[in-house]
Amino acid sequence: MTQPFQIIAETDGGGRRGRLHLPHQSVETPVFMPVGTQGTVKAVAQDVLESLGAEIVLGNTYHLYLRPGHEAIRRMGGLHRFMSWPRALLTDSGGFQVFSLNALRKVTDDGVRFRSHLDGSSHCFTPEHSVDVQIALGADVCMAFDECTEYPAERTRAQESLRLTMAWARRSLDHFRAHRHEVPWQEDGARSPFPGPQVRGTGGTQSLFGIIQGGMYRDLRRECAERLVEMNFDEMGFDGYAIGGLSVGEPRALTLEMIAEVLPLLPKDKPRYVMGVGYPDEIEQYARMGVDMMDCVLPTRAARHGLLFTSEGRLNIKNKQYAEDQNPPDLACDCPVCRRYSRAYLRHLMQAGEALSGTLNTIHNLAFYLGIMRRVRGELEAGSN
Amino acid sequence: MTQPFQIIAETDGGGRRGRLHLPHQSVETPVFMPVGTQGTVKAVAQDVLESLGAEIVLGNTYHLYLRPGHEAIRRMGGLHRFMSWPRALLTDSGGFQVFSLNALRKVTDDGVRFRSHLDGSSHCFTPEHSVDVQIALGADVCMAFDECTEYPAERTRAQESLRLTMAWARRSLDHFRAHRHEVPWQEDGARSPFPGPQVRGTGGTQSLFGIIQGGMYRDLRRECAERLVEMNFDEMGFDGYAIGGLSVGEPRALTLEMIAEVLPLLPKDKPRYVMGVGYPDEIEQYARMGVDMMDCVLPTRAARHGLLFTSEGRLNIKNKQYAEDQNPPDLACDCPVCRRYSRAYLRHLMQAGEALSGTLNTIHNLAFYLGIMRRVRGELEAGSN
Repeated sequence: MTQPFQIIAETDGGGRRGRLHLPHQSVETPVFMPVGTQGTVKAVAQDVLESLGAEIVLGNTYHLYLRPGHEAIRRMGGLHRFMSWPRALLTDSGGFQVFSLNALRKVTDDGVRFRSHLDGSSHCFTPEHSVDVQIALGADVCMAFDECTEYPAERTRAQESLRLTMAWARRSLDHFRAHRHEVPWQEDGARSPFPGPQVRGTGGTQSLFGIIQGGMYRDLRRECAERLVEMNFDEMGFDGYAIGGLSVGEPRALTLEMIAEVLPLLPKDKPRYVMGVGYPDEIEQYARMGVDMMDCVLPTRAARHGLLFTSEGRLNIKNKQYAEDQNPPDLACDCPVCRRYSRAYLRHLMQAGEALSGTLNTIHNLAFYLGIMRRVRGELEAGSN
Repeated sequence: MTQPFQIIAETDGGGRRGRLHLPHQSVETPVFMPVGTQGTVKAVAQDVLESLGAEIVLGNTYHLYLRPGHEAIRRMGGLHRFMSWPRALLTDSGGFQVFSLNALRKVTDDGVRFRSHLDGSSHCFTPEHSVDVQIALGADVCMAFDECTEYPAERTRAQESLRLTMAWARRSLDHFRAHRHEVPWQEDGARSPFPGPQVRGTGGTQSLFGIIQGGMYRDLRRECAERLVEMNFDEMGFDGYAIGGLSVGEPRALTLEMIAEVLPLLPKDKPRYVMGVGYPDEIEQYARMGVDMMDCVLPTRAARHGLLFTSEGRLNIKNKQYAEDQNPPDLACDCPVCRRYSRAYLRHLMQAGEALSGTLNTIHNLAFYLGIMRRVRGELEAGSN
C-alpha cells in the first residue's frame, strides 16, 4: 500500500481516531482541512496556519491550473514549495469547480470543456488531464476527476452522472498509476536554493482518492461505492474514498442519510473523506460516524463576512451590540485572536473595511474548527472500545 | 520635564542617537513610525508589528474621531487598549486630514468646519477639540492643531496659514496643559478584564508636540520655529517639535532646504519629528541630519500596490519577469517574508487579488524601513564624537 492509514482507536459508534501518513506530513484524523483555493488560505499566512495546528490544506486544481498555471508550479518544484507550505496538501480534481461554472461548461464522455472565469478562454479537462495537472501540482493527495451531480436531480440524470463518474474514475486511476512518478518533488536530497523552509517529500508518493457520487439516491450511492472499492489497477485500488456531491443545497438530513448509507461499504483501512462540509456541529457528527477527513470554505468565507463561530454559537461581529464589547470573540477560546483582541475592535475593523478584519476573523474561525477536531480526536481515543 | 528625551550619541553632522521615554515604551531614535490610520497598520496584526521591532505607531485623529468615535475609545480605556497595542502611540491633530478634504472644509480663526468623508455629516475641529479628542484617544504623543499650507502657496497665503497655526498652537498648548490629566489610562494598577496584553501607562503623561509650518519660505519657517520654541505655559513649552507641511508635492531639494533651515533653531534636548516622509534614502538622510522621528504611509501604501523596497532598489512585484522567480523579494533581507516566500509567490498573490498579498508586501516594506533606522542608529552611535 502506498499510503498507509493507521487506525489508533475505534468506537462502537463507528468513529475512528487515525493517522494518515502522507509524504509531507503525518496527519492526525479525523481532520478538518482549511481551503487554500489559490495557493493561500485567504488572508492567513502560512506560519499562522502552522501555529494553529493545520496539518493539511486544500488547493484548487481549477484555479491553480488557470493561474499561475500547473506547468509553472511544476517548474518551481510543486505547490508545496511554491506556497512555502511544508505540510500536507490535497488538490481537488477541478470537477466541482467546473461544475460550478454552469453556463460556461459542456460535458461529453471525454471530459468537460469550459471557459475560464478569468478571461473567457476555452479549456478542456479530461480525467487524464486533471490527473496530469494534479501530479504537476504535487499535492500529497489527488482526487479522481468526477462529475458532481446537482441538487435536485432526477434519477435518470443522477444515473448518467454516475456513469460518467465511474468511467472517469477508471481513467483517473489508470492514468495516475502510470504517471505519478512524474511528481515534481526533489528526490535527490539536495538543499533547495529557495529561502523558505525546506519543502520536500519525506518518502512515499502521491495518493489518489476515488469520489462517490449518485445524487440523493441511496441505491446509486451504494452502487457507486461498491464499484469504486472494487476498482483497481494491478490489484492496487484507490488510496482513499471521498463522498462528493453533498452540501449542494440538500437538506441536512439527506446529507446525513447519504453518508450513513455509504460509510459501511468502505474498507476500514482506507481514509474516508466527505467533501465540502460543514457547520461545526456537522463536522463533529460526521467525525463520530467514521468520517476521517473534511473540508469546507465555511469557516474562512464566513469569517470574511463577519460571522464568527464560537462555543456559544454564531456571532455576527458587525452587530451594533458589540460596538463597545471588550470581551474576546469567544470567552472559551484560547486562539491568538481571542487572547488579544476584543469584539469591539473586530467590529471596528469590519466597519472600517480594514484588511486585518478578514485575517483575524479567519484565524479565529479556523482555530475553532481545528479545535473541534482536536477535541473529537481526544474523545474518540478516550471512548474507544 | 514631562517627557525626557535622552541623547545617547551625537555626530559632527548633527545626527543624534537617542531614546524617547514615553509612558508605554522607551523608543529608540531615530525612529520610523508605521501609520495605523484607523487603529490598525493596514493588513498587519499587532504581534507581527511587535516582532518587526516597531516601538511606536501612528493613529489618525480624524479617522478615529469619526469611527468608532473618541468617546467610545475613551470608554474602552483608550486607543492602546482598544487596538491591543501595548507600545507607544502618536496621534496627529486631524489638521492634515481635514486639509486633505479640500472642498469639504471651511477654515475660520476658531477652527475648521468640515464634512465627513464617510457620511457627509458636519463637524468642527478647533484646537481645543482636537486636543480633547487626542486626550480621549490617549496616545503617548499628541500633536498641536495646525493648518497645513498647501504647495505651491503664495507668500501671503503662507503668512496667513502661519498666523493661524501660531494662534492654534497657543490654544492647543494651553488646553492640553489644563486637561491632560483626563487621559483614559488605568492609573489604579487593577488588572483589566480585557483578555489582551495588559496595556496601561507605565508612568508619565501624554506629550504635546508643536508643529512648524511656513510653506516653502525659509524666513517664515524660521519665524515659526522661533515662536514655537518660545511658547510655553507656566514655563513649560512643547515636549517636541514637528516640521509639518512637507512632502506635499514640492521638489525634494526644497524639503531638504526647509528641514536644514529649521533644525538648528530647535532645542537639542527635545525630539524633532518630520511629518510624512519619505523614501528609504530620505529617511536615512534626515536621520543623519538630526531628525529623530518620521512617519509615512509610503511603505504600507506602496506595498498594497505591489511596490517593494529592497536593498537593490524598488521592485514592482506585479512585473511578469518575477512570474517564476524563486528568489526572495530582497536577497539581503532577513524579514519573515524574505525568509519564507519567493517573488513568484508574491506576484501570484497580487495577480490573484489575494488578501495575503497586501499583508506580506507590507510586512517586508515595514521590515525594510525599520531595518534602515536600526542600521542608522548603530552608525550614529559608532560614528559619534
